[in-house]
Amino acid sequence: MVKVAVLGYGNIGSGVVTVIQENQALIEKKIDNEIEVKYVLDLRDFPGDPMEKKLVHDVNVILEDPEINIVCETMGGVEPAYTFSKKALLAGKSVCTSNKELVAAHGAELLEIAGKQNVNYMFEASVGGGIPIIRPLNNSLTPEKIEAITGIMNGTTNYMLTKMAKEGCSYEDVLKEAQEKGYAEKNPAADVEGYDACRKIAILSSLMCGKTVDYNDIYTEGITKITDKDFKYAKELGMSIKLLAMSKDVDGELLAMVAPFMISETHPLFAVNDVFNGILVHGNMLDDAMFYGRGAGKLPTASAVVSDVMECARNLHHNLRVYWSDEKMTMKNVSDTSKRFFVRMKADAFASARSAFGMPEKIVVPELPDEFAFITNVMTEKEYRQREQSVDGILGMIRVEA
Amino acid sequence: MVKVAVLGYGNIGSGVVTVIQENQALIEKKIDNEIEVKYVLDLRDFPGDPMEKKLVHDVNVILEDPEINIVCETMGGVEPAYTFSKKALLAGKSVCTSNKELVAAHGAELLEIAGKQNVNYMFEASVGGGIPIIRPLNNSLTPEKIEAITGIMNGTTNYMLTKMAKEGCSYEDVLKEAQEKGYAEKNPAADVEGYDACRKIAILSSLMCGKTVDYNDIYTEGITKITDKDFKYAKELGMSIKLLAMSKDVDGELLAMVAPFMISETHPLFAVNDVFNGILVHGNMLDDAMFYGRGAGKLPTASAVVSDVMECARNLHHNLRVYWSDEKMTMKNVSDTSKRFFVRMKADAFASARSAFGMPEKIVVPELPDEFAFITNVMTEKEYRQREQSVDGILGMIRVEA
Repeated sequence: MVKVAVLGYGNIGSGVVTVIQENQALIEKKIDNEIEVKYVLDLRDFPGDPMEKKLVHDVNVILEDPEINIVCETMGGVEPAYTFSKKALLAGKSVCTSNKELVAAHGAELLEIAGKQNVNYMFEASVGGGIPIIRPLNNSLTPEKIEAITGIMNGTTNYMLTKMAKEGCSYEDVLKEAQEKGYAEKNPAADVEGYDACRKIAILSSLMCGKTVDYNDIYTEGITKITDKDFKYAKELGMSIKLLAMSKDVDGELLAMVAPFMISETHPLFAVNDVFNGILVHGNMLDDAMFYGRGAGKLPTASAVVSDVMECARNLHHNLRVYWSDEKMTMKNVSDTSKRFFVRMKADAFASARSAFGMPEKIVVPELPDEFAFITNVMTEKEYRQREQSVDGILGMIRVEA
Repeated sequence: MVKVAVLGYGNIGSGVVTVIQENQALIEKKIDNEIEVKYVLDLRDFPGDPMEKKLVHDVNVILEDPEINIVCETMGGVEPAYTFSKKALLAGKSVCTSNKELVAAHGAELLEIAGKQNVNYMFEASVGGGIPIIRPLNNSLTPEKIEAITGIMNGTTNYMLTKMAKEGCSYEDVLKEAQEKGYAEKNPAADVEGYDACRKIAILSSLMCGKTVDYNDIYTEGITKITDKDFKYAKELGMSIKLLAMSKDVDGELLAMVAPFMISETHPLFAVNDVFNGILVHGNMLDDAMFYGRGAGKLPTASAVVSDVMECARNLHHNLRVYWSDEKMTMKNVSDTSKRFFVRMKADAFASARSAFGMPEKIVVPELPDEFAFITNVMTEKEYRQREQSVDGILGMIRVEA
């Protein structure tokens, strides 16, 4: 019998209980064992809830119960999740988590403890919700030298950007609607400022290079400066605007960033719309593979946690090695990387644009008579910033992904 | 030291050697062991080839060498691959294959032998080339009751259909071009008649339901009747025509078929073009996840074989259970399933269409004055066939996927 404890009875935690109960027969068949959720840890009480009698308020009940093999940490945030996870691993229990903040902050350390204890620390649900991406990187794309990972990894902002593209609404209106629908938090910073996507690309980048990519080192820009005007140009250009999280191996150094990008309709992520996520992995033998699906949501995310639980159940006293050491990865400075830039300027600044950026092709949208836009040649971020300094009248800039 | 033998030094077999050699350092790090291709089996000689000295013509050299842990079967076809694979497993060696014909025909039996011998039989490369799909089904989507799998699983026909859609060329011209480019064989039946896609959906369906889905029981229709005229209507309707392989759980019975379908632009497979494959998996908790990438090609397919080799190397004397028994799955008769049908008819047959199919909305393309088309209401295949019998002048029919 595999006995599981769930830490945190919120959206994902209660989803884990649902997935295990709904699909119990097939789960038990596949792990060749019985499974039971023995405890749920939460500060709150849930009177009348079917799990009411399994609720505990003290984590030590779980940590000290030798029957518990697997702990699902679905609390979110670094503390107390970090302390609880560490103690659970040290107590010889495997831990499965959906907690991207914690994995990004302490993944290498927790994996090392799991290795020493001959148990597992798994985090399939921390990136891409229900989309399998962590295990494919660890167990399927293993012969590949992964050269780049590029993805739409935040469903909330993708929903907002898709809505702005389709309906022409303003950033403020679409944020309000996303908050009303429960897609965005009251304080939406984690999503709209790109922090969530930043944690996720930090995790994938660490697995890609086998070292630790500190999320603090990742250049992160959110979507708060994107306006309905940008989308009018995007439409004119047949392009879409997406919040991309990307990581590239550039001569042994890692370039990682999160920012809104204009992408053309031939890009595999072009058609990833609404709350969906898409993650594109480029390997040296494979070329591109893409993983697409619901990047969030109670049941899809919980399903990913339970897939980890099942993998742990099949390997109760056997550590599955994950290549992610605590050695810090050398990061490439974003300023030195080259790309093209889409720039909007005031109508009267064309001469100035010409002198700073050469002879760019002027893009004009009839509905916006007071301004124009252009796409620069390929140049480094540093060069772009220098030229930007030398002109007045820039209204906005979005990077262009080839 | 892990010692590997490759059976068949053709396109995929030589790709396996390339992938192992190119990425040897990272492969060895991840399997925590050294790896070497000790033998290559082929009837031919390859004078001057770097592997020349490793070539053997007698499979018994491999089968009787206790140093060989893992055999890559990249021969294709059922015999002698079946006999060789069985003997290798019985000799205590794991077998990794790209051979969809063999896996579709004898998968359950070979898996059972592998289980008894405590080795592994793996076939990631048999479906979707370099796209991870077998391991995600076996190890990632494990808590899901998989309700449907729908995919574009044949790159050759997808290339042809994409070309017909974009350039308006005829079936005959595009087949000729695909043959010249080496995408299609001289005898193109395996691709264009849907046999290849049929084997692949048989494998995925077997994993989906844990029983054996006999590919002979899968209704299979190729693309040979698709004409440039069909694409003119598709364009008019904003739809695309794709060869879909699909499998659905319908009340505990399995509906599986391969046929060209019209799909609308909101369908996740709509934008899967050229030689790319896309496989959509629908689970009861997850909703949809899609796996996309190069479904064929030497190195991507070889990379999938090598990912199996690495998984076998990490589990040399440990069988990883795969849920696929030899019990035959009960199949649903395609005649009883319901859908809409796109039908082309001669211009003078409208009255006849009306009496047989009700009052369908007439679709007219100016370039095709001698005919019209319509899409029926939802009806069973059987009903459609009955009505089809009652009218003259039907020029073609394509199923419509919602």
